[in-house]
Amino acid sequence: MSAPAPAQATPLVSPALGVFAAWSTARLTEVEAALEAALPQQAPAELGAAMRYAVLDGGKRLRPLLVWAAAEAVAGASLGPASHEAARRCACAVELIHAYSLVHDDLPCMDNDVLRRGKPTAHVRFGEATALLAGDALQALAFEQVLGLAQATETAALAARLGLCLAQASGHQGMAGGQAIDLAAVGRQLNLAELEDMHRRKTGALLRASVQMGALAGGADAAALAALTRYGAALGLAFQVIDDVLDVVADSATLGKTAGKDAAADKPTFVSLLGLDGARAYALALQQQAQAALHEGALPAPQTLHALADWVLQRSN
Amino acid sequence: MSAPAPAQATPLVSPALGVFAAWSTARLTEVEAALEAALPQQAPAELGAAMRYAVLDGGKRLRPLLVWAAAEAVAGASLGPASHEAARRCACAVELIHAYSLVHDDLPCMDNDVLRRGKPTAHVRFGEATALLAGDALQALAFEQVLGLAQATETAALAARLGLCLAQASGHQGMAGGQAIDLAAVGRQLNLAELEDMHRRKTGALLRASVQMGALAGGADAAALAALTRYGAALGLAFQVIDDVLDVVADSATLGKTAGKDAAADKPTFVSLLGLDGARAYALALQQQAQAALHEGALPAPQTLHALADWVLQRSN
Repeated sequence: MSAPAPAQATPLVSPALGVFAAWSTARLTEVEAALEAALPQQAPAELGAAMRYAVLDGGKRLRPLLVWAAAEAVAGASLGPASHEAARRCACAVELIHAYSLVHDDLPCMDNDVLRRGKPTAHVRFGEATALLAGDALQALAFEQVLGLAQATETAALAARLGLCLAQASGHQGMAGGQAIDLAAVGRQLNLAELEDMHRRKTGALLRASVQMGALAGGADAAALAALTRYGAALGLAFQVIDDVLDVVADSATLGKTAGKDAAADKPTFVSLLGLDGARAYALALQQQAQAALHEGALPAPQTLHALADWVLQRSN
Repeated sequence: MSAPAPAQATPLVSPALGVFAAWSTARLTEVEAALEAALPQQAPAELGAAMRYAVLDGGKRLRPLLVWAAAEAVAGASLGPASHEAARRCACAVELIHAYSLVHDDLPCMDNDVLRRGKPTAHVRFGEATALLAGDALQALAFEQVLGLAQATETAALAARLGLCLAQASGHQGMAGGQAIDLAAVGRQLNLAELEDMHRRKTGALLRASVQMGALAGGADAAALAALTRYGAALGLAFQVIDDVLDVVADSATLGKTAGKDAAADKPTFVSLLGLDGARAYALALQQQAQAALHEGALPAPQTLHALADWVLQRSN
């Protein structure tokens, strides 16, 4: 079977964000080309096709954009060649981890979802076993991307630090741990602290790591890294709060995935705990935390990170 | 739920291999302690318990032993502190990758196996979703183990190189790729070259990487690394040929897993292609290739690697 043709990525366009839209379009073009190059053209049986299907499908690419924006915020917009390569590899890696997590999440034993980004999910298209393997191989490929940076000794320390950051965000302390809490939470009443803890791991850890890895790629010092870590943590949680709002107010066509699933599954959400207006207000407060962290960081070029925090609040899918 | 008590590892004992047995017992003790320390005591919900159940279960630990033996073969039996730490981290990492692959392999959508190392498989014990997540988290933990070596700049280049080796062995070019070939091979007639290609990836890549990572941890030069790579490739394939033999001649109690499954599933095996005697003769020829590679490498202390190659041929489970 031939690999599916890569779809166009969805640009993050907002009427108030014209400069940001141009920036985002340019970076998305580079990210799509880098992902295309990173993914195998020739992998055994249907594995390569399934990996490409899961990644080259027009996702929002928020995580890669956070990597680029954080690197540029630290380095002052124009990245040198070494930082540029590091940022590109990190941008691919975080998207590969995100894509693998979606493939595994959608499996029948997890969320059993059939629609993702407006297309049949990977296991519907390729079968469960191939989808499982494709997810596993995408995780390995993410580490291969980051660690491939270490071809020269002078970048090896950076590569290892980036890889460690990615592993911690993906594993039991991060994404996988959050998903385990999610599994155990169905039908239970979580309080706000428990719900936050789940989301800080499940989606927040990789969003925060995207910002941190970009900062490291851009050469951040300890103070800048700390400020950007706070930014990434607040933005990651705001993203999930808005996700819960969209699950209630948007339709499946706009979302590109099945709307209303969380409420139907009796999963606790920020909307079920805070109400729709309360959840929106909480997202706004988190966005303001993120913006405040950027100010405290005194970064040379934070404007794109500001715009990304605005976009997280204004997005419709 | 409390974590299961760690089982005793099965020592690799053979009457002809008394010195090796003492070596193996000592190294296994260190490997079990290192795995115990690497695995989370506290991970959300049942994730930590499932991870520990999948790893601390008395496996043979062939891959960790290959790491140690290769490091000692290169460094001359007594490892310095830096090589020792690198070898210990690599030994854990390859076993974590191996354990994750078994958990995912056993899932209903793959081999649908209920017995592993004499115990219910992880998904039988914890449910499919938790088993899936535990496998995912074990993969991330493997990279975390290797990359945690890079706390000092002088070891960062080694850590990144080890991590890259592990990623390549685990991903679409290696283990996951081999499993995809395996999926596509059920009921098909593979020839010997195709069967070898499958196994060189599916189990061979990680066995070879174990030897390579040990060699790198021990400070191998290019010539030693090349010889040990040939050793690892031949040993990895011999291991699989013997696996196919044992699948036919051993019973489930001895194997600790369901015997006769491959034949029942109409999967191509070395026994189905070469016959039982032909498969045994092929394994012997591969063992001799492995031993020859060791001689060519002119290593300071190759004796344990020689003994491991003997064990691979003589094992009963």
